[in-house]
Amino acid sequence: MNGLLTDLYQLTMAAGYFEAGKSREVATFELTVRRLPPNRNFVLACGLPQVVEYLLGLAFSDEEVEYVRTLPQFARVSPRFFEMLRGLRFTGDLFAVPEGTPVFAGEPILTLRAPVIEAQIPETYLLAAVAFQSLIATKAARIVNCAGGRPVIEFGTRRAHTAEAGVLGARAAFIGGCAGTSNTLAGFRFSVPVMGTSGHSWVMSFASETEAFRHLQKLLGDNAVQLVDTYDTLEGTRKAAALGAPLWGIRLDSGDIATLAREARKILDGAGMRSAKIMASGDLDERKIRAFVAGGVPIDAFGVGTDLATSGDAPSMGAIYKLVELDVGGITRYTAKLGTEKGTLPGSKQIFRLADHDILARSAECCAGSEEALLQPVILGGRLIEPLPGVHSARKRAAEGLAKLPPELQSLDTVAPWPVRHSAELTQLVETARRNLQ
Amino acid sequence: MNGLLTDLYQLTMAAGYFEAGKSREVATFELTVRRLPPNRNFVLACGLPQVVEYLLGLAFSDEEVEYVRTLPQFARVSPRFFEMLRGLRFTGDLFAVPEGTPVFAGEPILTLRAPVIEAQIPETYLLAAVAFQSLIATKAARIVNCAGGRPVIEFGTRRAHTAEAGVLGARAAFIGGCAGTSNTLAGFRFSVPVMGTSGHSWVMSFASETEAFRHLQKLLGDNAVQLVDTYDTLEGTRKAAALGAPLWGIRLDSGDIATLAREARKILDGAGMRSAKIMASGDLDERKIRAFVAGGVPIDAFGVGTDLATSGDAPSMGAIYKLVELDVGGITRYTAKLGTEKGTLPGSKQIFRLADHDILARSAECCAGSEEALLQPVILGGRLIEPLPGVHSARKRAAEGLAKLPPELQSLDTVAPWPVRHSAELTQLVETARRNLQ
Repeated sequence: MNGLLTDLYQLTMAAGYFEAGKSREVATFELTVRRLPPNRNFVLACGLPQVVEYLLGLAFSDEEVEYVRTLPQFARVSPRFFEMLRGLRFTGDLFAVPEGTPVFAGEPILTLRAPVIEAQIPETYLLAAVAFQSLIATKAARIVNCAGGRPVIEFGTRRAHTAEAGVLGARAAFIGGCAGTSNTLAGFRFSVPVMGTSGHSWVMSFASETEAFRHLQKLLGDNAVQLVDTYDTLEGTRKAAALGAPLWGIRLDSGDIATLAREARKILDGAGMRSAKIMASGDLDERKIRAFVAGGVPIDAFGVGTDLATSGDAPSMGAIYKLVELDVGGITRYTAKLGTEKGTLPGSKQIFRLADHDILARSAECCAGSEEALLQPVILGGRLIEPLPGVHSARKRAAEGLAKLPPELQSLDTVAPWPVRHSAELTQLVETARRNLQ
Repeated sequence: MNGLLTDLYQLTMAAGYFEAGKSREVATFELTVRRLPPNRNFVLACGLPQVVEYLLGLAFSDEEVEYVRTLPQFARVSPRFFEMLRGLRFTGDLFAVPEGTPVFAGEPILTLRAPVIEAQIPETYLLAAVAFQSLIATKAARIVNCAGGRPVIEFGTRRAHTAEAGVLGARAAFIGGCAGTSNTLAGFRFSVPVMGTSGHSWVMSFASETEAFRHLQKLLGDNAVQLVDTYDTLEGTRKAAALGAPLWGIRLDSGDIATLAREARKILDGAGMRSAKIMASGDLDERKIRAFVAGGVPIDAFGVGTDLATSGDAPSMGAIYKLVELDVGGITRYTAKLGTEKGTLPGSKQIFRLADHDILARSAECCAGSEEALLQPVILGGRLIEPLPGVHSARKRAAEGLAKLPPELQSLDTVAPWPVRHSAELTQLVETARRNLQ
């Protein structure tokens, strides 16, 4: 079961809430992008199905409860707490920005409202699930944007932080705009298109490169992508070209890719293989791809691994999960952390997206007009209200959401931020709450 | 089952080997640290139990095989291949450097020898499992070394790349020298000591900070760590100090930590709480910790999250899994990828560690003397030969292994590398093999 997939202090606090008689207080937490990662002007929200799966499955086995009971931090906790833990299920509400939506600093991606213990324990899992997939989807969008219409394939599972991160990263990369992934399980579990070529071991396992190429061609026909850099890239290209059709093309994975691609193109064209394509891979990132495209290097597709699967230039995101309201016997207390750098805003919120800015408002506010309310109900009273959209819908939403924003927000560096204004009601609540807290 | 947890091209190559009549050829692959991550002078090998679990469980369900069969890349593959896949198990041998061992660039961490299909499919999983945990263990060792004997606790699951990465990262961080982790599941699954404090929501959920502190103290006694920065750090410290014993101490999580720690120390001492400790957390890394320690800042323990859980300054590692030998009907072919930058060395190898250098030798060589052969048998003929050591043994091995190396290798920046020399036999094999391949 998944109950222990959390930081110990969530369970300590749960015991504390229980012992302090606070179990029935209803907490509202928001998961917010505090700061955008460096050189980003947006983040694509991603990871919602994993959040839902976690919440609907939240439970502790007897053995897990017994483990908690034996910890020194729980020595003074009453047996009734462990009884409660054994029967704990998520009975609350979840509101979320749909997957693929671009969001900005200070905006909540999820709002969770539940009895305080059920709302506290999920913090750790939810942050990890949403921040990671959102990072990868965002990174993919950057790379795909630089590739100027050429397909980008996610190749990074081997560099992901565990194989499971490879699967979920492949999912997120597809939502961010990749054409597919090499991760087979992401295809099986999430219907992400799966793609692939062959590795150096394939070539090495045959007595000659030509023999390896011939066998691959026989197996894959015009899906065959010949990896030509095992011994000598241009020699390898000549051998691949000499076999003739059928052939998708070749893959370059090392060396001076720009020069090799130009030479390889000449070799393929010279052999009458004008329709054979060139895929590049090997430590690529958005800046290298932008340079290839700007330089007119004849590359038809990119395979991106390490830098995409780890969001290499920004491997973490400042997401937070903060208590914004607490209902205590029918009375609502608005809560906030103070501080200029890491302060939070009290009260449950809604995001309205307009043509040229967002409005962060209190959750009960209505904006008249054509704007879109981004936070939508997903789970109510512990039940999923309707099946979530799949990866193809999320990918479409990401593309459409980005297309509606100014193109400069897709710059690889920081530009003027998308304006996120606070509604008058929210501004007033913030002032009142901060005064009360000081 | 875990069979699809791999790149598609591993399965395409598997089908290709099958169709080319190569199923019985026995391949030897090595998983090698090609390059050390930036600013590292060693890597701590980590992740072996996950490798073993994967290999012993390698299998495809009927549904998974059916999925593969429907892919366009498998349209020409004969039905017998899918029959084979359905019954596939790992029957080969695994040799590995024990967890916690420091290794260097060019050294294999694992050697896998099996019929070529069984040896090819695991590549993706093995690279992800070993590279990720090794990165985190190495990062932990850097941080712990800078903390000069003060305990470092791993707090990073919320920033890990999926919650599962949080669990395995916590495991690796403990092996690298952390005193414990906040990740409860890492405690349950791997016996890593679990630790924790309380969060801002705990403080915010009470009408006053003092009330929150009092309830935590009642719950935890001298395990209580009061988080004092929700509203005003020094005011919070005064309130915590005013409650008196029992108390472990306080945690500072934001602001100018060095200044706040000095002021907080005065407040605690002034209140007669000399035994109360100060823990610091909040975007720490090894360089900040080194500066605190060098500056005599009164911090007794460090909680490190984001930067440790993602190996923030080096989130990926250039590990490779390359075919080094292929036995075809009793004849061994030695294989290598050529190229100055990404070339590989043929032949199965052994690492001998001596007092002032390592020797990379052919696997059958014996070094006379007191040196240690690092690659040891783990799985033979598909069976685990003995239970693996747990995390406590691996942690001890890491500490002892690092203690035997020159202290400057633990510098935060690159120094003269630990010498890894090639044996005469290996040198000869490399020359012969490269000549034959050109």
